[in-house]
Amino acid sequence: MTHNVAILGASGYTGAELIRLIAGHPTIEIAALAADRKAGMHMAQVFPHLRHMELPKLCKIDEIDFAAIDLCFCALPHKTSQQVISALPADLKIIDLSADFRLRDPEAYATWYGNAHSAVEMQREAVYGLTEFYREQIAQARLVAGTGCNAAAGQFALRPLIAAGVIDLDEIILDLKCAVSGAGRSLKENLLHAELSEGYHAYAVGGTHRHLGEFDQEFSRLAGRPVQVQFTPHLIPANRGILATAYLRGEAQAIHRAFAEAYADEPFLAVLPLGETPSTHHVRGSNFCHIGVVPDRITGRTIVVTVLDNLTKGSSGQALQNANLILGESETEGLLMAPLFP
Amino acid sequence: MTHNVAILGASGYTGAELIRLIAGHPTIEIAALAADRKAGMHMAQVFPHLRHMELPKLCKIDEIDFAAIDLCFCALPHKTSQQVISALPADLKIIDLSADFRLRDPEAYATWYGNAHSAVEMQREAVYGLTEFYREQIAQARLVAGTGCNAAAGQFALRPLIAAGVIDLDEIILDLKCAVSGAGRSLKENLLHAELSEGYHAYAVGGTHRHLGEFDQEFSRLAGRPVQVQFTPHLIPANRGILATAYLRGEAQAIHRAFAEAYADEPFLAVLPLGETPSTHHVRGSNFCHIGVVPDRITGRTIVVTVLDNLTKGSSGQALQNANLILGESETEGLLMAPLFP
Amino acid sequence: MTHNVAILGASGYTGAELIRLIAGHPTIEIAALAADRKAGMHMAQVFPHLRHMELPKLCKIDEIDFAAIDLCFCALPHKTSQQVISALPADLKIIDLSADFRLRDPEAYATWYGNAHSAVEMQREAVYGLTEFYREQIAQARLVAGTGCNAAAGQFALRPLIAAGVIDLDEIILDLKCAVSGAGRSLKENLLHAELSEGYHAYAVGGTHRHLGEFDQEFSRLAGRPVQVQFTPHLIPANRGILATAYLRGEAQAIHRAFAEAYADEPFLAVLPLGETPSTHHVRGSNFCHIGVVPDRITGRTIVVTVLDNLTKGSSGQALQNANLILGESETEGLLMAPLFP
Amino acid sequence: MTHNVAILGASGYTGAELIRLIAGHPTIEIAALAADRKAGMHMAQVFPHLRHMELPKLCKIDEIDFAAIDLCFCALPHKTSQQVISALPADLKIIDLSADFRLRDPEAYATWYGNAHSAVEMQREAVYGLTEFYREQIAQARLVAGTGCNAAAGQFALRPLIAAGVIDLDEIILDLKCAVSGAGRSLKENLLHAELSEGYHAYAVGGTHRHLGEFDQEFSRLAGRPVQVQFTPHLIPANRGILATAYLRGEAQAIHRAFAEAYADEPFLAVLPLGETPSTHHVRGSNFCHIGVVPDRITGRTIVVTVLDNLTKGSSGQALQNANLILGESETEGLLMAPLFP
Repeated sequence: MTHNVAILGASGYTGAELIRLIAGHPTIEIAALAADRKAGMHMAQVFPHLRHMELPKLCKIDEIDFAAIDLCFCALPHKTSQQVISALPADLKIIDLSADFRLRDPEAYATWYGNAHSAVEMQREAVYGLTEFYREQIAQARLVAGTGCNAAAGQFALRPLIAAGVIDLDEIILDLKCAVSGAGRSLKENLLHAELSEGYHAYAVGGTHRHLGEFDQEFSRLAGRPVQVQFTPHLIPANRGILATAYLRGEAQAIHRAFAEAYADEPFLAVLPLGETPSTHHVRGSNFCHIGVVPDRITGRTIVVTVLDNLTKGSSGQALQNANLILGESETEGLLMAPLFP
Repeated sequence: MTHNVAILGASGYTGAELIRLIAGHPTIEIAALAADRKAGMHMAQVFPHLRHMELPKLCKIDEIDFAAIDLCFCALPHKTSQQVISALPADLKIIDLSADFRLRDPEAYATWYGNAHSAVEMQREAVYGLTEFYREQIAQARLVAGTGCNAAAGQFALRPLIAAGVIDLDEIILDLKCAVSGAGRSLKENLLHAELSEGYHAYAVGGTHRHLGEFDQEFSRLAGRPVQVQFTPHLIPANRGILATAYLRGEAQAIHRAFAEAYADEPFLAVLPLGETPSTHHVRGSNFCHIGVVPDRITGRTIVVTVLDNLTKGSSGQALQNANLILGESETEGLLMAPLFP
Repeated sequence: MTHNVAILGASGYTGAELIRLIAGHPTIEIAALAADRKAGMHMAQVFPHLRHMELPKLCKIDEIDFAAIDLCFCALPHKTSQQVISALPADLKIIDLSADFRLRDPEAYATWYGNAHSAVEMQREAVYGLTEFYREQIAQARLVAGTGCNAAAGQFALRPLIAAGVIDLDEIILDLKCAVSGAGRSLKENLLHAELSEGYHAYAVGGTHRHLGEFDQEFSRLAGRPVQVQFTPHLIPANRGILATAYLRGEAQAIHRAFAEAYADEPFLAVLPLGETPSTHHVRGSNFCHIGVVPDRITGRTIVVTVLDNLTKGSSGQALQNANLILGESETEGLLMAPLFP
Repeated sequence: MTHNVAILGASGYTGAELIRLIAGHPTIEIAALAADRKAGMHMAQVFPHLRHMELPKLCKIDEIDFAAIDLCFCALPHKTSQQVISALPADLKIIDLSADFRLRDPEAYATWYGNAHSAVEMQREAVYGLTEFYREQIAQARLVAGTGCNAAAGQFALRPLIAAGVIDLDEIILDLKCAVSGAGRSLKENLLHAELSEGYHAYAVGGTHRHLGEFDQEFSRLAGRPVQVQFTPHLIPANRGILATAYLRGEAQAIHRAFAEAYADEPFLAVLPLGETPSTHHVRGSNFCHIGVVPDRITGRTIVVTVLDNLTKGSSGQALQNANLILGESETEGLLMAPLFP
C-alpha cells in the first residue's frame, strides 16, 4: 500500500533531506511539494542533487488537494508553521518540523519565542516527537512536533540517566558543537563560507538558546521536579553534525549501564563500550546516534559524548521515523542507510 | 536468491564505500572481508561508521573459503592486486578496483606503471569496467577491471563526442579538479588536513598521470586512430568529487545532441540543458554523473563540464553496477540513493 | 613623514584587508573609514579581528575632510564607485578597487557591465593598476584602477609570453580555480558554507566573466592586434586564493625563459624552476605570486600554473603597492610579510 | 643590534611559524636552521611558502657553531628535546617549544609522559614560559619552557580568577575546541583531510591529556593548595585555533572585573565587554587572545570563552615574545601583525 505525503516548505534543508530519505522508502510517495516563493519551479532547479527523482513541481500550499494526502510534513519556518497548520484540514495527519508545537505550555512558548502562540489548542494536542520516548503517543497522534536538533542530542544523552537516577540533576552541563546546516538556508553574514570556514565560536551563551525550553519541559517532567541544565552551543565549520559533551556527576559504570539498558533494543541508538567516544563523522547522513561514556579522573564525575546528524536523526530522519509509526510501517523503513564516510 | 561476496582490501576507502553501498542492496550478502594488516579486527574498529552493520570480522585472504563466494571485489593497492588475483581460484568472478588490469597492452602497462606486469594472461582476459560502454562484455566477464576515477569522468565527457565525430580529436584538453579521497587512506604529508584544507594545487602536470594510459587506450580504440589528450588534475580541499572541464573544438549544439542521444537511456548519466553546468555538490555520495555543455564566446569552441563522486560512480558504485550485471540483478539495484546535500 | 589615507567601503573584505596590511606599514595612517550603512559603528564590531587597532569610527563619506587626506582608497561596489569618485575633490589621489575604471573604452565598459558609464572622462584618465606593468604611470596617476583579481592572475601568467612572442595568441586557455572571498561579503545562497563547503563548480562558463574585458583590452594592446582568450573560473571551497592553469602552444623552455627575464627583478613574482608548480597554500595572506612552467607530453604545448591571494596581490595588496608608488615610499613597504601556512 | 638565532626542528609547524614571525622582526636574524632528516635541503623545498626569504640551508644540529648564536629556539619533538638540549653549550640561551621542561617536578613528568626525565637538573632550572605571568624570570632565564598551547588558553582563562578568588576552585570545567595544527606535521590517519574535514570528535577524554600536568602544577601553585580541573579537548576541522569554554562557579561581574584588572596593560590579551564572546576567526595568525565573560541563566554560574591561535600565541608567538624579553627588545616586537580574516 502506498502512502501519499505532502511536504510544505520543500525548498529548505529539512525539506530536501526528507525527499532524500523518502527516495529510499518503498511505500511512501511524494504527492505534493509546496514552497510559496518558489512555486512553479522544478525541484531540480531548487535542489539539483534531486534531479534524478520524478517529483511534483513546487506549488503553493492552497493548490494542494489534501483529501488525497495521507500525511503532511511541515518544514516551514517557526511562526509561519502555526499559522499554516491551523488552516489545514482538521483530520490531516501532520508532522511538524518547526519549533511551534514543541512546548506544551503557552507561557513557556511565549517566554522562549517572544510572542503569544496563535494556535494554543493545537499546541496542547501535539505529541512531542522524540520517537524513542513517545512511540505510542506518536503512533496515535494527529499532530507530531519534531524536536529541536540540539534538543534531540541532549535528550539522548540524558533521559536514561535522569530516569535511572544515576546523575545529580542540579549539576548538568551540555556543551554542544553544532554544524552549520542547523541554521538552515538563511542568508546571514555569519553563515557565509568566508566567515565560518576555518574558525568557530560559541553562540547563545548563558542559557538563551530556545532549545532550553525543550530541555526544561522534558527533563522536569521526567524527573518530577524542576530541572535546569547549562547549555552552550558552538558553531563548527562543518555542514552536518551535532556533538554533545555532557559533564555529569555520577558513576561512569552506572551511567553506562543505564544507557545500555535503556537503549538495548533501539535500532538507531548505539552505546559504545565504556571508555570510547564517538565522532560526528561516523553518523553523517544517517539516522544513527552514537553515545560514549568516560569516567573523569576526578572521582564521581563522568563525561558523556553523543553524536548525531542534525538534519537526519535530529530532524528529517526523526520525522520519517515518526511517519513510519503513524502509517503503520516498520519504524526503520527507509532509515537504515549507512553513514557517508569519508 | 542471495549472492555471497568477498571484499579484499576492506580497510581502505573504496572497500568501505562498497560496504556502504551493499548495505542497501537487497540480494548481496557480505560473506568475507579481508585486510591483511588489520586481520582479526572488527569493522567497527576500522570504520566506526559501519558499526550498525552485522559484518564478518576482518581476516587474511587465505582464510576465505572461496568456494562459498559468488563474486569477489578486490580493493587492494596497485601491484598487490595482480599478485593476489593470480593466486585466486581460476573460476572465481572478480571485480578489481585497482589499476592492474585496466590496460590491455603489457607494454603500455609497463610504460605507465614502471614495472612489468606479473599476470599478463589475466591482463588480456580482463574486461574494462566502464559499465555504460562495456555492458555485454562485463555481464559475461570472469575478471572486470574497474576504471580509474579520473578516467571514468573523462570518458563520460568525451566518448559520445568521439563516437559521433563532433569534436576535433587533436585538440582535447581535460582540466580536472579532484577531491582528496581519490588518493586513498595513505599517510602522506600533502594529504594532511593542515596541508590541504584552504588551498589547492595541480599535480602530475604535463601528461604524467597514469589515467592517461586509459584515455590513450580507450579513445584511440574508439576513434580507430591514435588520440592523445592533455590532462591536468588538481587537488581540491574536499573529500569527494571530480569535476572535469573539457575544452573542445566543435559546435555546442552538436555536442549537446551527441550526449543527449548517447545517454538517453542511461539511468546514472544526466545531460543538463544546453548552457547549464553541474556541481560536485549535486552528486556527492551517489552513483550519478551530471554533464553540462556551454558554447564559448569564440566560435567553434565548446566547454563540457562533468561531475561525479570518485568513490561512488568513479569506483565502488561502478563496481557494484558491474556486479549487478554479472549476478543477473537489475543494473541499478542498490545504487539509486540520492546524493547527500548539504 | 606620515601619509593620511581614507578608506571608502571599509566594511567589505577588500577594505578589511587594506586595514590589515596598513597595520604593518610604518608611514601610512588611517585617518578616515567610511561605510555608509554601518556609519557610527566601531571597526571592532564590524571586523572583530581588527579589535587591537586604534581606528577611527566608521563614518559617512560626506563626513570626511578630504583636505586632510593624502590618498583615498575606494573599496566600494561596482557602479557605486564611479558615482562616489566623480563627486570627490578633483585633486584627490584615488586608488579604486572596483571594476569601474579598469576598461578605458566606454563601449567595452557598457558591453561587459550592461550600463553606460557615468564618469567617462575619469574612465579615460584612470591608469590601469597592474603595478609590475604600469609602474611609471601609476606613480604619476591621479586615479588608479585596481585590476580584477582573476585579471591579475591571468596577466601575470601571460603578459611576458605575449610580449616575448613565445606563444600562439589564438590558442590560449585559462582555467581558473577561485576561492570564495573574491565574491565579497555578499549574502548569496551559493556563498553559504553549507552550499559551498565540500563541493565545487564552474561559473560564468563560455566567456561571460567580466574580467575578460580586461584580458581583451590588455592582451590586444600588448600584442598590437586583437587577442581573445578562453577563460573559465571555478568556485573552490577555500577562502583565499586563485590558481590559474594556462594551456598554451609554445615551447616550455622559451616560456620559462621569458618569465625568468621579465620577472628577474620583481620582488613579488617568483618563477619556479622549470617543471615545478605552485600551490595557493604558499601565497595565502601574502603579496607574492608564484608561477610554474611544465612542458606537456604533446610536443609544443606547455602548461603554466600561477597562484596568488585574491585579496592581497589580487586586490588590496596591489592597492597598497600602488599607494607606495604614489606616495614615494619603497614599493614593497608593508607588503613583505610571509604567507600564513598552515 | 642584530641577534643571531638558531632554530632546531625547523621542518615542523612551530619551526615554520617562528620563521614566519621572525620575517617581520627588525633585529633578529636567522643564522642556522636544523632539521636532521631534511639536512641539506632548502627551506623552499620543505616549506614553499617561505620561498621569498633568504634563509640558511637546513643542517644537522652538530653543524651549528653555537658560539655565534645568541639564542636558540628548540622546536623538536618531546623527549628528543631533552636529549638535544642537555648536549648544547651550558651558557646558550634556549627557548624550548616542546613539553620537556614544562613540569618542574620529575615525578609529575614521569606520571604524565610515561618515562623518567633524562635531564632532571635542567628541568628544575627551566622557567615556565607563560609570558604574562613569568615576565621577570623569563627575562633572566637561561632555559625557557614554552607552554602547551591548550595550557596557555586554559591559563589565560583562569589564572586571574584563581588569583582574585572569584571562582570555586573545585568546580572548574574546561571544554576545548582545538584545530588540527596543534597535532603537528605527523602522519596519522586521523589527521588526514579525508578523516577530519566535515566532522569532529573529543579526544583524551576523562582527564588524560598531558596539558593537565601543567594545569595541576600552575593552578595549585597559584592557589596555594591542590587544584584539579576537568579538561576535555575536541578536534575541530580547522587548521589554527583553540577555543576554551570554561564553566565556572562565580559571579560574572566579579569575574569580568578580575580579567579587566589583570589584563589592563597586556598588549595581547583583550577582554571583551561583558556578555560578548570571541571567535577563533578573529585571532588567526596573530598573537592576540580574546576573552569573553557571560553569566549563565543559573545564578552563580558563569561561562568564560577564550580564543587564541595555537601556533602563534599558543606556541611560536609566545616563544618570540619570550625571546624579546631575553634579548632586551620590546616585548611586542614582530608580534603586532593583524589576524588574517577571512
